[in-house]
Amino acid sequence: MKPAGQCTVGIAGLGLMGGAIAKALGRPGPDGKSRQPGAPGRLFAHDTGAETLARARAAGIIDRGFDDPGEMLPHCDVVFLCLNPSTLTGFTKTWQASFKTGALVTDIAGVKESVCAEADRLLCERNDLDFIPGHPMAGAEGEGFENSGRVNFSGKNYILTPLPRNRPENLAFLKDLIRLMGFGRVTETTAADHDNKIAFTSQLCHVIAASLIDCGDDTEITRFGGGSFEDLTRIAMLNVPMWTELFLENRDRLLSHIRQFEKSLDGIKALIKTGDLPTLTKRLAAVRDRRSGMAG
Amino acid sequence: MKPAGQCTVGIAGLGLMGGAIAKALGRPGPDGKSRQPGAPGRLFAHDTGAETLARARAAGIIDRGFDDPGEMLPHCDVVFLCLNPSTLTGFTKTWQASFKTGALVTDIAGVKESVCAEADRLLCERNDLDFIPGHPMAGAEGEGFENSGRVNFSGKNYILTPLPRNRPENLAFLKDLIRLMGFGRVTETTAADHDNKIAFTSQLCHVIAASLIDCGDDTEITRFGGGSFEDLTRIAMLNVPMWTELFLENRDRLLSHIRQFEKSLDGIKALIKTGDLPTLTKRLAAVRDRRSGMAG
Repeated sequence: MKPAGQCTVGIAGLGLMGGAIAKALGRPGPDGKSRQPGAPGRLFAHDTGAETLARARAAGIIDRGFDDPGEMLPHCDVVFLCLNPSTLTGFTKTWQASFKTGALVTDIAGVKESVCAEADRLLCERNDLDFIPGHPMAGAEGEGFENSGRVNFSGKNYILTPLPRNRPENLAFLKDLIRLMGFGRVTETTAADHDNKIAFTSQLCHVIAASLIDCGDDTEITRFGGGSFEDLTRIAMLNVPMWTELFLENRDRLLSHIRQFEKSLDGIKALIKTGDLPTLTKRLAAVRDRRSGMAG
Repeated sequence: MKPAGQCTVGIAGLGLMGGAIAKALGRPGPDGKSRQPGAPGRLFAHDTGAETLARARAAGIIDRGFDDPGEMLPHCDVVFLCLNPSTLTGFTKTWQASFKTGALVTDIAGVKESVCAEADRLLCERNDLDFIPGHPMAGAEGEGFENSGRVNFSGKNYILTPLPRNRPENLAFLKDLIRLMGFGRVTETTAADHDNKIAFTSQLCHVIAASLIDCGDDTEITRFGGGSFEDLTRIAMLNVPMWTELFLENRDRLLSHIRQFEKSLDGIKALIKTGDLPTLTKRLAAVRDRRSGMAG
C-alpha cells in the first residue's frame, strides 16, 4: 500500500458511523488547516442522501461526494463499508466489479461471523481485493450524519477479525488509520469470538436497558434518579432498525447470554428474598472486586 | 431558625456522603477564602475515626471534630445524620437527649419508610426537635471520607419526605442548604412513594449491574466494551454493607420491581427467539421514544 498521503479513502454510507469516520480521518492537523500527518490524501464518500454529501463537502469533511458507488469505488485504495449488516452484502454483491484493483476493504458491522463471511465470499471472487473485517466500538444516541458529531472515538476499542489471507502490510496500514482516528486499544480476534463477546458487552446491555425502560411507564421517574438509572438506560435511545438486525443476526449467542444473566439475577433475587445477608454480602463483594479489576 | 451564617451545622458520620456534604457546605466562596454566602457559620463533625476528623480539620473542611456525639450535638442548630440505615436508629436512641433544643435534624438514608419512622418516633420523644427525612440522590464508587471527593452534587436530585408536623421555615431553610450544596431538583414526596421509586431507579439498577458482572468471568472483557457495558456496571463497585442493607430494608418493593423487569426482559427475549422483527421493532421504538422523553 502507498503512503496514506497518496491514498484515496472512500466511505460507503455517510451515516452516524461513516460520518464520524470521515470527520476523524479528515480533521485538520496541528496547523489547523492541512490534515493530520498520516491522514489520507483524498477522502471520498458515497451516500444515497444528496443533501448529506453536500453538507459534508461544504464543511470540508470530504473532498468529493458520490451518489453512485460505481463512480467512487474505482478511485479508492481503501474503502470503509459503513452500512447496516443487512445492506452490506447486497452492496458488495452489486458493486463487486467496481472496486479498485488491490483495494483494502473494511467494514464496521457489529456482527462479524455471518455478515462478513458472506461479504468476504463475494469480495473473494475478486481475488485482488483484501477484505479486513472490523468493528469500531463506539457509538452515540440518534442516527444519521447529523448525529455523527456526537460519536467520540478517543481511547475507544476497535476490534479486527482478520482473515488468514489478509496482507500483513494492509493490516498494519489499517491499524495506523484506526489510531489516527483516535482509537485506543486495537484487538485482533476471530469473528466467532467477537460475536460471542459483543453479544455480552453490547447486545445484552442494550436488551437490559430496553427492558428497564419497558418495565416502567413514569416519564417523571428521573426526578428520583441518582445517575445509575440514567446511565443504565441512555443506550435505550437506540438506532432501532440496526439493533433489531444485530439482535437477530447474533440471536443464539445473545439468547445464551440473556439466559446467563437471568440466572445471575435470579440468584441475587433469591438471596434478597430469603434475606440471606451473609451470602448476599459475599456475592456482592465478589462482584465489586471483579468489576474493580476491569478497565473503564 | 437563625440565618445560616449564625448557625452551627453538625454532621454525624464523616464517610462518603457525610464527607461530601461537609465539603459542599464548607467550600470557599467567590473570594476563595471565606465560605459561600448562605453557608453555615460553623461546621462541626462527629466520626468514630479520629484520623478522619483530623484530616478534615487540617484541610479546613470542618471547624471542629468530635469523637463524642454527646459533646457535638448540644452545639448544633442543624444536624445531618450521615449514617447507614442500620446505625441511624441506634444513634438517635442513644444520643436523643443531647440534641440542641429546637434543632433541625435530617438524614440521608436511601430507604425512608421503615428507617425514618423509627428515627422519627425516637426523636419525637423530644417534641422540640424537627426531623425532616431526606435523601441526596448522589454517590460514588468506594466508601469512606477518602472517597468523598468523588461525589458530585452538581445538578443532582434531592428527595425530601417531610412529616406533617415539620415547620415550614425549617423545610425552607433545609432546601436553601441543599441548593447551596449544588443540588438541582428538590422533590417532596411521601416515604412510601420514595421507597417505591428508589427501588426502581436505584436499587434495581444496582441489582442489574451486579448480575451483569456476576454472570461473566472474563476480566479482559472490557477490551470488547464500547461504553455501554462499562456504564451499566460501574455501580457494581458498590458499598457492599450499605447496599445489602438497602436491598433488605426495601425488600418487597425491590422484589416486585425485579419481577417487573424480568417480565419485560422475558418479553423482549421471546421476540428475539421467535425472530419477530416487526413486533421487536415496535417494542424497541416505543422504548426509545419513552427514554427520549426522560431527562438525563
